[in-house]
Amino acid sequence: MTAISNRLTRTLNIRHPIISAPMHLAAGGVLAAAVSRAGGLGLIGGGYGDSTWLDEQFEAAAAQRVGVGFITWSLRKSPSLLTDVLKRNPAAVMLSFGDPRLFVDEIRKAGALVICQCQNTDHVWDAIDVGADIVVAQGAEAGGHGALRGTLSFVPETANLLAVHSPNSMLLAAGGIADGRGLAAALMLGADGVLVGTRFWASNEALVSERHHEAIIEATGDETIRTTVADIARQIPWPRGFTARIRRNAFTQRWHDRESLLEQNVAVEGPCYRQAFSEGDPDNTGVWFGEAAGLVSTIEPASVIVDRMATDAASLLSGQRATSLT
Amino acid sequence: MTAISNRLTRTLNIRHPIISAPMHLAAGGVLAAAVSRAGGLGLIGGGYGDSTWLDEQFEAAAAQRVGVGFITWSLRKSPSLLTDVLKRNPAAVMLSFGDPRLFVDEIRKAGALVICQCQNTDHVWDAIDVGADIVVAQGAEAGGHGALRGTLSFVPETANLLAVHSPNSMLLAAGGIADGRGLAAALMLGADGVLVGTRFWASNEALVSERHHEAIIEATGDETIRTTVADIARQIPWPRGFTARIRRNAFTQRWHDRESLLEQNVAVEGPCYRQAFSEGDPDNTGVWFGEAAGLVSTIEPASVIVDRMATDAASLLSGQRATSLT
Ligand SMILES: Cc1cc2nc3c(=O)[nH]c(=O)nc-3n(C[C@H](O)[C@H](O)[C@H](O)COP(=O)(O)O)c2cc1C
Ligand SMILES: Cc1cc2nc3c(=O)[nH]c(=O)nc-3n(C[C@H](O)[C@H](O)[C@H](O)COP(=O)(O)O)c2cc1C
Repeated sequence: MTAISNRLTRTLNIRHPIISAPMHLAAGGVLAAAVSRAGGLGLIGGGYGDSTWLDEQFEAAAAQRVGVGFITWSLRKSPSLLTDVLKRNPAAVMLSFGDPRLFVDEIRKAGALVICQCQNTDHVWDAIDVGADIVVAQGAEAGGHGALRGTLSFVPETANLLAVHSPNSMLLAAGGIADGRGLAAALMLGADGVLVGTRFWASNEALVSERHHEAIIEATGDETIRTTVADIARQIPWPRGFTARIRRNAFTQRWHDRESLLEQNVAVEGPCYRQAFSEGDPDNTGVWFGEAAGLVSTIEPASVIVDRMATDAASLLSGQRATSLT
Repeated sequence: MTAISNRLTRTLNIRHPIISAPMHLAAGGVLAAAVSRAGGLGLIGGGYGDSTWLDEQFEAAAAQRVGVGFITWSLRKSPSLLTDVLKRNPAAVMLSFGDPRLFVDEIRKAGALVICQCQNTDHVWDAIDVGADIVVAQGAEAGGHGALRGTLSFVPETANLLAVHSPNSMLLAAGGIADGRGLAAALMLGADGVLVGTRFWASNEALVSERHHEAIIEATGDETIRTTVADIARQIPWPRGFTARIRRNAFTQRWHDRESLLEQNVAVEGPCYRQAFSEGDPDNTGVWFGEAAGLVSTIEPASVIVDRMATDAASLLSGQRATSLT
């Protein structure tokens, strides 16, 4: 089979330049291992950090080589989580949403690659500063937390910065990529590969409730919103400038643009949010997916997603399309 | 030279699948003609419609084959503008921001192609309904008016809809495309070509003041914002759901998030906005460019922009890149 091979696949020793995102709650060890087994690299969602959960997920990955990701501003509060996780020999550690400087040396010393996810050019400069092995340019269409830049212009702008200031850093595109077309486009934009969240959230191995999965199948890409209301309800103190893209539903209708009222009612609304989430209610809690929802029509095994994405991208790139070059 | 040839280039009888956007005020006849002469198709920015200006611009295009674009909700107020313009035999008429149904028959009868620019899937359904010859999937990173969807996921989602429901409609990607990488990516995503605004705004032929041009050269792609403040200041009653992406500057700092105060002071602030604009002040008025600003480092002739975009895309697509397919 035709495969895409480049410095990313060689450095990570993977068959396809596809990395699954460290999605808080959804990306456990089973998903990460399935993505790695299929030839990509799976990242466990370290999220805000829960050492018991992390232990369980590394166990669930069952010795398959995987990586892990943390929310950087949160990791500062409990840096020992990183120390513990590094004992598991992750292939890579992704840091996103905050200053990576505090953690980079420890990750390197443990022999893992440093991945810095960036939402704007200031973040890219931080990543250059620490000599990140891999930089992720994450666009606003992404599911979960992120910021304002669109993937299509942010990826080549980041590629330009890296070409001049950190040519050995590899680049992943993230946000809105769900199939071979997205992977092929990312490579054209100057990326070495892709970081994919939403599409793997919609896999059998993701830790996602059935009714949330049904919601993504029904949704077009228009039916998401960037908002702070999920963080307010959960009382997670996100730094300014970041919002989360989630499904538009009764919960976002009720509270988006009424954030201070939600804050006032959080003693009641917080537990409602959490209960609805744990019950798999798709309407009265955050349902965490991005604009790529419009490209998802079935829940499938992660291996099928990886395979098709890689195969379709390779055939697009080798010219098996309507466009002819004359 | 290698060129990209597909159903779009054949139907429009152009050499490169590159169309310049009908940018209000900035895209006059000289720019449109230069883009067409270089092998793309240039569109004159009909904007809100000023028949004297439109006459001048078609004269300035000097018999070069060009097209024109209108802001649909505004055209409803003075539909005779369309009738007049069709006497000039435009190659195509683009309708954006409103219901295209009222105008499609007249455009067709005059022998021009119908281009519908879409910002979400509802708009795509409208375009399918009228059997648009060309559909533009415009992402939020675009300069000027637009909405929320990111280009990278909206283009393939639109391609999916057209493939099933209107396979003869051709697709353009718009928003954040400024070079060969963007064009190549758009083709991978399933588009037949691109509609490019910001990059041509930064051309010698655009009707843009020198200091506004200096501002785009300095700006990164982070330095724009989607806002309604320019429309409020100009007292242009845009329908809900559309915002304009402009440069972040003193004007947007002052008024964004204080929209009702601006409304109250519009008798003073409106004339200030217009005067600053006409003086080429880059700080106290709307400076109209998108996130692709981060990919613009020089003001160049439109022909150079078209040439390089086409050449670079063709070489990316023919595999002259670091990625190898093994
Ligand atoms: C359900 C979900 C949870 C996420 N949680 C995290 C997280 O904990 N840490 C993080 O760095 N990124 C997180 N992200 C963002 C991803 O890292 C990635 O940027 C994004 O999923 C890419 O866009 P896509 O969803 O369109 O594929 C999350 C994304 C989703 C969909
Ligand atoms: C200065 C400027 C003015 C614009 N005016 C219009 C307009 O009058 N009508 C319209 O349909 N689109 C207008 N647009 C949007 C373009 O049609 C197009 O979608 C956009 O420029 C594409 O994104 P890009 O700017 O990143 O290339 C304008 C864009 C710019 C930059």
